Amino acid sequence: MATSLETQHPVKALGWAAKDPSGVLAPLKFSRRATGEHDVQFKVMYCGVCHSDLHMVKNEWGFTQYPIVPGHEIVGIVTEVGSKVEKFKVGDKVGVGCLVGSCRECDQCASDLENYCPKQILTYSAPYTDGTITYGGYSNLMVANEHFVVRWPENLPLDIGAPLLCAGITTYSPLRHFGLDKPGLKVGVVGLGGLGHVAVKFAKAFGTTVTVISTSLSKKKEAIENLGADEFLVSRNPEEMQAAAGTWMVSLIVSATLTQFAPLLSLLKPHGKLICVGAPEKPLELPVFSLIMGRKLIAGSAIGGLKETQEMLDFAAKHNILPDVEIIPIDYVNTAMERLLKSDVKYRFVIDIENSLKAELQL
Amino acid sequence: MATSLETQHPVKALGWAAKDPSGVLAPLKFSRRATGEHDVQFKVMYCGVCHSDLHMVKNEWGFTQYPIVPGHEIVGIVTEVGSKVEKFKVGDKVGVGCLVGSCRECDQCASDLENYCPKQILTYSAPYTDGTITYGGYSNLMVANEHFVVRWPENLPLDIGAPLLCAGITTYSPLRHFGLDKPGLKVGVVGLGGLGHVAVKFAKAFGTTVTVISTSLSKKKEAIENLGADEFLVSRNPEEMQAAAGTWMVSLIVSATLTQFAPLLSLLKPHGKLICVGAPEKPLELPVFSLIMGRKLIAGSAIGGLKETQEMLDFAAKHNILPDVEIIPIDYVNTAMERLLKSDVKYRFVIDIENSLKAELQL
Repeated sequence: MATSLETQHPVKALGWAAKDPSGVLAPLKFSRRATGEHDVQFKVMYCGVCHSDLHMVKNEWGFTQYPIVPGHEIVGIVTEVGSKVEKFKVGDKVGVGCLVGSCRECDQCASDLENYCPKQILTYSAPYTDGTITYGGYSNLMVANEHFVVRWPENLPLDIGAPLLCAGITTYSPLRHFGLDKPGLKVGVVGLGGLGHVAVKFAKAFGTTVTVISTSLSKKKEAIENLGADEFLVSRNPEEMQAAAGTWMVSLIVSATLTQFAPLLSLLKPHGKLICVGAPEKPLELPVFSLIMGRKLIAGSAIGGLKETQEMLDFAAKHNILPDVEIIPIDYVNTAMERLLKSDVKYRFVIDIENSLKAELQL
Repeated sequence: MATSLETQHPVKALGWAAKDPSGVLAPLKFSRRATGEHDVQFKVMYCGVCHSDLHMVKNEWGFTQYPIVPGHEIVGIVTEVGSKVEKFKVGDKVGVGCLVGSCRECDQCASDLENYCPKQILTYSAPYTDGTITYGGYSNLMVANEHFVVRWPENLPLDIGAPLLCAGITTYSPLRHFGLDKPGLKVGVVGLGGLGHVAVKFAKAFGTTVTVISTSLSKKKEAIENLGADEFLVSRNPEEMQAAAGTWMVSLIVSATLTQFAPLLSLLKPHGKLICVGAPEKPLELPVFSLIMGRKLIAGSAIGGLKETQEMLDFAAKHNILPDVEIIPIDYVNTAMERLLKSDVKYRFVIDIENSLKAELQL
């Protein structure tokens, strides 16, 4: 298997991979395809660590293909472009997020919503069009069709900015799509982790009044002083929740550990919206009556299309919106995964691929 | 109590009321207020029997005030108007739906959405501004503030049209608000009862392709031949449901007996919408992941505002949209309630108040 991975394609690559559902990551030699006509090859500089990576290395969603090289918040510098590539040249700063392919023909693709294309190809652990499996950004080298590569804005730091490629677009897209980007609106961000803290920053940049809703009072100071939230609400405090009932026009749910809709629906004014971007493992109970009485809605949203991802990056660069990250070397990644499981990170790990995986290569 | 009701106000009235949670209706003498400056008094001609009436006479929602005179699909002829009434004159045909009051000051009221005003006053069994309890349309006489009275279009039959005042607006409003009124859209109507059959007619009039989704194949012929639906889907047939997966752009839920969201969510294309206008008694399980993956939404909607109710009536008159009804005398109402409980009506009972309650009065 290892031999096959190393020789399957002509370009040698090194990554860190999990080989089984233990999820333990270790160095893996594999290979990347030759740069096709429409492909961009780039040296990976940094890669964010998303909670999805943790779910996937442990096969918690049931569709992991081992060995898995995770990572879908990938930034780097172009090393080679195919003959028909129009948007990029060698030396450009670029990014790749959660997707490396889609059908390019369906209604969704035609509407720049590749993220809802039924044939979308995830950046790692998914079958690519040539029959091989995709490998993500915990690796020294990437190659992707230029349609799925975004231009990195000149003034956006490569390291700190990396998580925008998943955490950023996942929160930016629903704020825009569901009209939660209007100055003066009251927006709630439920759960303050990798997604939530970026959601606060975007919502503030849109001019909304932002309340962080969290299970724990311990995050209040941080949310207000460091992230710029206007208010803080402890979801486990019934008095606080009752006092706030009916005051939010709209609310963005982020947490995947949500256990109840009812208390959040109570916070909403009529026509309020709860948008889920984190998926609890089990179905949640929905009291339909409370939706009806206020014409409220609950919706979901998954990452964003390529056009919108570029728009989000440009917006972030312009408004200086950057995730709060902890930069780590690749050999810290297993420890980072353990800490991530305990939410012990503010708020995203980013792997310094260039400086730490290079060393591995020379071993 | 009976004496008090008869003398509480100066205008004698007769209705049929339930006196306790048995829900059995019987004649009741009560009184109506004198016609105030902004009031319209009218002789009730017809009143539809809504499933809510059944819930309310039995106190199934827990806030019934006995004795209760139900009925909120009320049409009649104006007999008196207050000195400051501008829209109506004696002899006009008018209607009153689910509401007879609201605060007239809040954001909702200012947006012609009295139906979402937190101080809305229901047409029956609710405290009115003067401290008395409201009584509905199972009675010979009504009086209401002109703001809550709609003009009955000249060519709309009083009897058959009555259910539009609840069943009509309850389905028309969400079809409009959620953009399900665009020609060419595929709309599903889930459950074919008092609301569902009117939803089919409005959706067809908007130019959409309509599929009725029902638990029972027995309604197929009726749905397609009599109501004009384009397709029929049996929700208990897994093969049919599977074959239809991902084909609906939007879908209007109607049934209050819905037990599962998941199969309906599967029918939707990305960005599809499930709109609940009937409330199941218990919360339903919502698989959040399936909302996220297709940016789908579940929303609720409750009746409509007064402006939109008038718009709906005018639209119905113009497009000849009429509920299918069974006209009954008032003394049949207890039997009608029993039949309604078994869904044994196509699709709405309408009480001929003028001809049957008049006889009662002369006893």
